[in-house]
This record gives sequence, structure tokens and C-alpha cells, in this order.
Amino acid sequence: MTARQSLSTVGLLGGGVIGAGWAARFLLNGINVRIYDVDPQAERKVGEVLALARRAYAKMLLAPLPAAGTLTFVDSPEAAVAGVDFVQESAPERLDLKQQLLAQASRAAAPHVVFGSSTSGLLPTQLQAHMEHPERLVVGHPFNPVYLLPLIEVCGGDRTSAATRERARAVYSAVGMRPLLLRKEIDGFVADRLMEALWREALWLVNDGVATAEEIDDAIRFGAGLRWSFMGTFLVYRIAGGEAGMRHFMAQFGPALKWPWTKLMDVPEITPDLLDRLVAQSDAQAGGKSIRQLEALRDDCLVAVMQGLRQVGFGAGETLAAYERSLFSGATPPPARIDAPIEVQRRHIPADWTDYNGHTNDSRYMQLSSEAMDEFFRSIGFNAGYLASGRSFYTVESHVRYLGESKAGDEIVVTAQVVQLGEKRVHLHSVMARPDGTPVATAEHLYLHVDTALKKSSPLGAELLQALAPIAAAHAKLPRPAGSGRYVGQSVK
Amino acid sequence: MTARQSLSTVGLLGGGVIGAGWAARFLLNGINVRIYDVDPQAERKVGEVLALARRAYAKMLLAPLPAAGTLTFVDSPEAAVAGVDFVQESAPERLDLKQQLLAQASRAAAPHVVFGSSTSGLLPTQLQAHMEHPERLVVGHPFNPVYLLPLIEVCGGDRTSAATRERARAVYSAVGMRPLLLRKEIDGFVADRLMEALWREALWLVNDGVATAEEIDDAIRFGAGLRWSFMGTFLVYRIAGGEAGMRHFMAQFGPALKWPWTKLMDVPEITPDLLDRLVAQSDAQAGGKSIRQLEALRDDCLVAVMQGLRQVGFGAGETLAAYERSLFSGATPPPARIDAPIEVQRRHIPADWTDYNGHTNDSRYMQLSSEAMDEFFRSIGFNAGYLASGRSFYTVESHVRYLGESKAGDEIVVTAQVVQLGEKRVHLHSVMARPDGTPVATAEHLYLHVDTALKKSSPLGAELLQALAPIAAAHAKLPRPAGSGRYVGQSVK
Repeated sequence: MTARQSLSTVGLLGGGVIGAGWAARFLLNGINVRIYDVDPQAERKVGEVLALARRAYAKMLLAPLPAAGTLTFVDSPEAAVAGVDFVQESAPERLDLKQQLLAQASRAAAPHVVFGSSTSGLLPTQLQAHMEHPERLVVGHPFNPVYLLPLIEVCGGDRTSAATRERARAVYSAVGMRPLLLRKEIDGFVADRLMEALWREALWLVNDGVATAEEIDDAIRFGAGLRWSFMGTFLVYRIAGGEAGMRHFMAQFGPALKWPWTKLMDVPEITPDLLDRLVAQSDAQAGGKSIRQLEALRDDCLVAVMQGLRQVGFGAGETLAAYERSLFSGATPPPARIDAPIEVQRRHIPADWTDYNGHTNDSRYMQLSSEAMDEFFRSIGFNAGYLASGRSFYTVESHVRYLGESKAGDEIVVTAQVVQLGEKRVHLHSVMARPDGTPVATAEHLYLHVDTALKKSSPLGAELLQALAPIAAAHAKLPRPAGSGRYVGQSVK
Repeated sequence: MTARQSLSTVGLLGGGVIGAGWAARFLLNGINVRIYDVDPQAERKVGEVLALARRAYAKMLLAPLPAAGTLTFVDSPEAAVAGVDFVQESAPERLDLKQQLLAQASRAAAPHVVFGSSTSGLLPTQLQAHMEHPERLVVGHPFNPVYLLPLIEVCGGDRTSAATRERARAVYSAVGMRPLLLRKEIDGFVADRLMEALWREALWLVNDGVATAEEIDDAIRFGAGLRWSFMGTFLVYRIAGGEAGMRHFMAQFGPALKWPWTKLMDVPEITPDLLDRLVAQSDAQAGGKSIRQLEALRDDCLVAVMQGLRQVGFGAGETLAAYERSLFSGATPPPARIDAPIEVQRRHIPADWTDYNGHTNDSRYMQLSSEAMDEFFRSIGFNAGYLASGRSFYTVESHVRYLGESKAGDEIVVTAQVVQLGEKRVHLHSVMARPDGTPVATAEHLYLHVDTALKKSSPLGAELLQALAPIAAAHAKLPRPAGSGRYVGQSVK
């Protein structure tokens, strides 16, 4: 049983920005959520974050997500943890408050249930102090937005058991995250120490009038920040050191550490004047965009960056690819009904498929149809195991008719119809339509079954025919799809 | 005259990693380079960096680059600056060495020629001290790899003129960079101070045995680093603050600055033991990859991230898009020869177009052909101005035949042939072939000319017909392309 399967319901203590992000990540992974928060606005706020997450996942994932879990708001910590398989605490960063909440909830939860705390810097040894079964508390420190960023720092306290760490690692991995298991319990853990160091220096630069908030941000995002999205500071510097490696780099640049480049002092005092300047600069930088607009922009960028890295198979892209593989490995179920064209896929048009007018680029309909037909083939048993046996399909030719327009975010339903099934070939027709059935484009594809070692055509495997023949027989009774068999330019006056 | 046009030759003082990166950026933008370096290996090293840059640009840019500039190695600073339009100095980080080099070269350069220094932290007031015409010295601090990262910090000294700053800004912008004009001259400028702060904290974490180099890098690249590739620390924190903005964020998280999260001390002493640990951890992290392999991996990631951000139109993606527009705005020249299918585009297959086998995904040939036909249309005058007049083309249908295979990095030549030109429609056929002429795929497309306000078909504009009619007449004499007019499934036994 995978961790996701052994995780049917989680309890969330706290539904602010972080708690809501957790709710979204668990729900979209098919896990039920029970959430407790004292804020009367919590339900609205969680709903808004969930909407952002749905939007981002639709763009990010080709793989089908399981049916979403159900979200239940409860009015006590005890109700939040009743009958759940895992608890995540995301209360405000006050030790006494968190200690009390964890103690109270731990008395109500089943004894085996592991608790993760989202704290940014409080120590797990302190957090677990008053808990029943304190060995089941671990820090699981996520990063905003929790439903997109893969990093989670996992840190145990003095009494945390090895089994607790392992359970937390498995739970977080199952919902697409990248756990970093910390060796030592220290204030701020690892990531926040690095972020704080940079942030403190940034505040000095504003304090001293060297640069504005926007200029400092530009100094990050057009330079080092681009590299940091896939390689940390050590690997970047190794590369800068050239063939001679890290020792050479340290010899060359180590002395610069002693140069007067950084403020080796305490933090700048946040005077009213400095605060006013910070606020004014931040307002100028936001350029009138609301927080929701900024969040959507941030999410679009994160999705684009992670999708780009997925193509390279590195860093967060590797994490995303592994997550998608795990979603796919749920095995595409065979079609439920075969007496009509089969609904293969529902997708939202990604922002990067559209042109300057916001319309989907023509060539993307071919991609949409092609990827949906891949999904159809998976549903009849054409999977990694079949490929590994040295058999595959080559596409011989394709034809697309463009019938309407779509824009980024539009939902498109793709159906597949078997036009002809031969001994060695499959002819499919697809309709790409709006949810109301209005077609936006149609396509047809001819696939040849091949022996990949001999590089020549070969008969379809019996395991595929078993699934495909009944569909072909049923579809043979349907009318031939409109537009099928056309050639380009036919009957255009 | 644009800055690129007024920039025919640059002189480079220094050809190490940074100087070679400059050589690549200028050369690939069609600018000649004269380079001086004392290293007898300089020519080999510059060649290797240039090869990396060619590889990355082929993946990154759809827009056509001008013909590459010529690269000349010279044996003195004087020879490097003779007859050039701009000088960039990238010598080792030693003030005396740079001062002397700049002084020597400034006596040989024409008096109006601006000098940029790549120094990471030395002050321009000191660098210009002994120069002839010191007002023309500016720091232009780039980031590695110089041919890809857009950031360049531009900082003047006490004697630097406003005209010098403006010239440097224009030169760097013309080759696709994003200048950040600094307000004050400070040690380390802005970006290096931020990077040093994070790096110093990272060294403490290794020193204290809290985390390894690889774990620290993971704490960056799976979390904050992903955000930093498009938003800096201030905008990220503004979003974290929610609707109440930066003032609320500071009230909430400002106190954390006083928590014991960072080492408020001097830098850790780089003892032999710490150095050994650093080197061992860095070797482990590199996993046996050579520096060239790491560089190629880094470049693939940067290209993927920037291409992703281009689709969102934000951050470095906006810079890349503007750069591409400027490359395109050179106006696609009309075809030189029209008595044969017209070579429209040469492209290298991007890494993210390929499947698990490394083969180009079928649907990408449609994209390849479609984007090349867009380029063909631009060459006959279908441009932003024409679109703005309320006229456009809609694609009616397309047909692709898949004839061979290609892999990431393969060069593909796309040719266009006019099959038919009607009053309101254009029927094009394209061949996607290897440079030796072997076709990999063919496609045909039917385009309908439309009035975008009325949303109905309309006759092609006279300005397009003037360019297109002679091509159609010449192509009418050619044999009809093989495979044109086929329907899917035709004559397949």
C-alpha cells in the first residue's frame, strides 16, 4: 500500500495562508481534510487558496489527479483530529500557543497518528513537550505556496521516533513534495537561515539608500535567482571554480569573504522612517496589483519554471516528473462506456499555448489531440511494460481541422473514436470540444504498430487487441466522424 | 540607428570564464570581437564557452540571430581596443592589475569609446583613477554564464559621465541584457552583497555540521530559489503578508529578524579541516559530472526557466521576449530565390520537444511547420502593422506526414512551397528536413484571410499579394509536393 493509499483523511490545525495551502495540496491529491481555525473568515480564505491551487494544478499536471477529497470545517482541535490518519499544525508562530494546541489535539488523536508542525523556526523538542505520545511530533516546514513548492524540511526533536520521521517523509512525498531530512535541530532550520541572511542584507541596502525594494528584487531575479531555481550556491560556485573544483574556487574567492561586502552587524533597526520607505517602495513595486493577482502571477511563474525544469529532468522538475509518474502509475482505467466516442481527457488550455491575442496556437490542437490519444492508448494497456517488450506505435500521419477558438484556461474535453483497426494499424479520430459539446477542433491520426528492435511493422499484441477489438467493433456501428478522410483544401471554394 | 547597429566591433580585455562569456554574447549577436588574454590556453577556453553558448542559443531563441561576428585573438591591450566601438574589461579581481590595464588600454582607444569593467566589487572611482578620459569608465558587472543571465549592474564612479552610463546601458540592452543602474557606488554593489550574505550563512551551516553542501543547495533550489527566479525577496514577502501588504508583513515577521536564526558574526575561518569537508561534499554533490557537463546542465535549466517565464511574460522572460522582438524587428527579409521551395527556417530541436526515448514528439512537427510558416508570412509583409489594420489569417486545416525521426539538438531546415494562392486563401506545403535534405516530416496548411472585426473571410491585402503572387506563379511551375492532398489512411495497405 502506498502512503497516499494509507492516507484517507488529514486533520489541519490552522487555516491561514499555510494551512489553506496544505488543505489545497491534500484535497487535490484525493485526501479528505478536516480543518480547525478560529478565524470566522477561514472558510472564505481557504476557498480562495483552493481556487488558486486548482488553477495551478490544471496548468502544471498532465497526469490525472484522483477525485478531490472532501473539505470539512470543524470547531475544535479535537474534532479536527478525530479519525484522521495524519495531522498538520499551522498555527501562528507562538511557542505557547502551538504547545497548547498540540497537547490538546494529541489527547484526542489516535495514538499512532503522526503530527507535523509547519513552524518556520521553533524547535520540535519544545513543541512536543506537553504532547501525549510526544514521539510522534516532527517539524514539517513547508514554503509558500504550499500546494506548489516541493521543499519540506523534516526535523525531529529529542523525543521524536525514527518511525515518525519515516511516516512524515512518506506522507509528504506521496503528495508530490521533496522532504529534506535535517540532521540537527537548530533555530530557523536550514532554509530560513539562508533566506534571513539575504533578507537582512536587503534591509540594510534599503536602510542605507543604496537601492530600492524593486531594484534589490531585480538584482536577484535577473541574476542569481535564475540559477537558484535549480542549483544552490555550492554547485553554482563549483562551476565558477572551473575544472579545478571547489578547492580552487575557495582559493580564488574565499578571500572575498573578508572584503567589506556585507554588513557584519546586528539587524537594522526598523524605525518608522525605514518602515515608511519600505512600504512605499513595496507599493510602487506592486504597481497596483492586488494580492490575488500577484499570487496568480507567482503561481504561473512557478508552474512555468517547474515545467521547464521537468523537461530537463533536474531539480524541482525531477520532483514534478516523479510525482506525475506516481499519478500515472495508478494505471489509466479502461473506458467505462464504449458505445460512443470515448471521453479521454479534460484539460485546461495552458497560458503558454496562446498567441499574442490570447488564442490557442493552431499547432497546440495537434499536441492536445496527440497527448489525449496517448492517454487512450494507455487505457487499453499500452504502458511502460508493453514498451519494454520492444513493441510500440509510430504515427504515420495526422490531420487537424480548426473549427473554433479557445483561450488560456478554457476547459477542453477530448474524445476518441476508433475509425479503423487493422492487424498492424490503428486509425483514431478525436474531437476537442468545450464542455457543452461545441467542437473547437478535430483530428485524426494513423498509427502503425512496430517492432522497435527490427524497426518494422508488426501485428498488435494480443493484450492490446483484447481491449481494443470490442471498442473498434462498437465504434464501427457509429457514423463516420464528420471531417474524417478529408484532405487539405478539399471542397473549399 | 539602434545600439546594435552602432556596435560593429568590441574589444575584450581578459578571456577567462567571464571574458569568454562576453565574447560569446557579442559574437552571437553579430558583433566582431578582439580579445586579449595572457593565458596561452585562452583560445581553447573561449572556443569551449562559445560552443556552450551556441548550443544554448539554439534552444533558447526562435528569432533568427544575425550572422555571427568574427573572433580575433590579439597579443596586447592596445591591439584589443584598436578601432573598436566598446571595450569590456574582465581581468582578475586585483585593483592594481585592473587599474594598470585600463590605463594602458585607454591611451590606445579612440577617446569616445566607453569602457565597461566586469569587476564583482571594486569601485569604479578607483578603477578609472589612471585612465585617459576617465569619464568613460563604468562598471558593467555581469553574472555567469554571461551569455545567458540577463542581469548587469551598471555603476559609475565619481568621474563617470551621464553619457557613458547611457551608452553602456544601450550596449548591454542591445545584446539582450537587463541593466540595473545603481544609485550609489558601494563595495560589492547590490547583487554580490546579497549572494555573499547567503553564502556566508551557508558556510556556517557546513562549518557547524548542520547540513552538507548538497542539503543546503536542496534547501534553496526546491524552495525559495524557485521563487527567486522571477520575484525577489521583497515581492515574495509582500505576498506572504497578504492583503494588508508590507507593513503587515513587517509587523508579523520583523520580530523574527531578532531571533537567533543567523550567525551575526564574522565569517567562519576557512580552516584546512573545513576546506577538506567542503571539497569532499562538493565532489559528492557533483556525482562525477565534469565541469562541462555541469555547465551544459546549468544552461539547459536556465534556458528552460527563461523560456517558461517568457510564456508568462514576467521577469527574465519579459527580457527574453523583448530581446526576441528586437531580433524579429530587424524585419524578416523577403526570400532571395523564389524558383524553388523557399528555405524559411533552420532550427535545432529543443530538449523539451522529445519523449522518454529522446525522439521528437509527433505533435512538435506541426509546431515546427506552423512556426516556420509564420516566419514565411512575415517575409511577405504579414507583420504587426498588418495585424493592427484588422486583417489576419486563420488556419482552416493542416496535415502532417511523419517520415523519419529526430532527436534533441538535431538541426532541421524548413522549406515552404505555395501550393495554391486564392483571392482569400493560401495553401502552403512545408518540408522539414535534415541539412543533407533527408525529409523528417512534411506538412500542408490551408489559411483563410479574414477581417478580424467582422470575423469573416476577406481578400488578401494588396501589399501581401505584391510579394506573394510572384512566388505563387513561380511555384506553380514546380511539381506538386509529394504527399500533398493526401487524406489520413489513404493507400495504406
